[in-house]
Amino acid sequence: MIELKEMIDSKGKIIGNNILKVDEFLNHQMDIELINKIGDKFHEFFKEKNITKILTIEASGIGIAAIAAQYFKCNVVFAKKTKSLNLIGDMYRTRVKSFTKNEEFEVLVAQKLLNPEDRILIIDDFLAEGSACLGLIDIVKQSKAQLSGIGIVIEKGFQDGGKIIREMGIDLCSLAIIESMSEDGGAVYRD
Amino acid sequence: MIELKEMIDSKGKIIGNNILKVDEFLNHQMDIELINKIGDKFHEFFKEKNITKILTIEASGIGIAAIAAQYFKCNVVFAKKTKSLNLIGDMYRTRVKSFTKNEEFEVLVAQKLLNPEDRILIIDDFLAEGSACLGLIDIVKQSKAQLSGIGIVIEKGFQDGGKIIREMGIDLCSLAIIESMSEDGGAVYRD
Repeated sequence: MIELKEMIDSKGKIIGNNILKVDEFLNHQMDIELINKIGDKFHEFFKEKNITKILTIEASGIGIAAIAAQYFKCNVVFAKKTKSLNLIGDMYRTRVKSFTKNEEFEVLVAQKLLNPEDRILIIDDFLAEGSACLGLIDIVKQSKAQLSGIGIVIEKGFQDGGKIIREMGIDLCSLAIIESMSEDGGAVYRD
Repeated sequence: MIELKEMIDSKGKIIGNNILKVDEFLNHQMDIELINKIGDKFHEFFKEKNITKILTIEASGIGIAAIAAQYFKCNVVFAKKTKSLNLIGDMYRTRVKSFTKNEEFEVLVAQKLLNPEDRILIIDDFLAEGSACLGLIDIVKQSKAQLSGIGIVIEKGFQDGGKIIREMGIDLCSLAIIESMSEDGGAVYRD
């Protein structure tokens, strides 16, 4: 997606060969015009799948999922990372490791919110090692809903998440795949 | 807002006299059609204020803020509750107590994302004791931006947050104010 790559190139900050900061437009400030185009793009890619629900994980996925859901005319469920006093009732549970926070945590989704009849699209901002995505895939499996696809804004193609998910036979749409990156040379994208 | 009160009455769950679960439509599953109407309503209320940025706090505020921002044609900044490895640079910091999680945490916003020229609308899902809102107000003050108003989906009118904020002279728009609630009697709304 050209507008996205242009935004990464102009406003993203690369630190070392591994960390890409996109806090000016994606996961701290959200550029709503860009995210609208991202939602439209996901819809263009998955519109034949009759998606009934978008599943994401707090926090950075929520805004992207909410805007994308307007195109699909469906609702969003976001998996919760922490145990609120208000989380009562039967939960699907899985464990996820955060690459950027270097910690493991439990992820919860209320069982009543996912049904075997649902056709689920998972959406998230980043795909790196794939731990968050694999956690959400695990929750969809537990619910017996159909996983119709995964939409990712930025995939770090030099980490293993994308490979693992494609080898599972899942329909994965990453709007920008970074093959390599460096502070001097910027990001190099996969075609 | 009638559609919101109807949704609270039909799909909200009251536990004791204090906890209102709205996980089926607002802060776990998001009813995108309803949240679109909520965004429109905030815009109707604040459209004369020339809002340049919406400020919210992760996680439940993000989806509401993102959809509302489409009406204002502005961007969203969401305050972060935890310290990610990617949070580098100068930060505005404040402390917030969570009513539903019974814990205190630090809240961060990158200084570069708020400017003295900004006219800020704060948006959040709930207002109870007001700790999250007061934290966001503190961050807006630190940035020297103008606080143009606060939009809240559900205010618990029997707790002090709304009173404190109105006494500060801030333009507060709560779409549903619950005067009292009980498991048997449901929610009673302020006019």
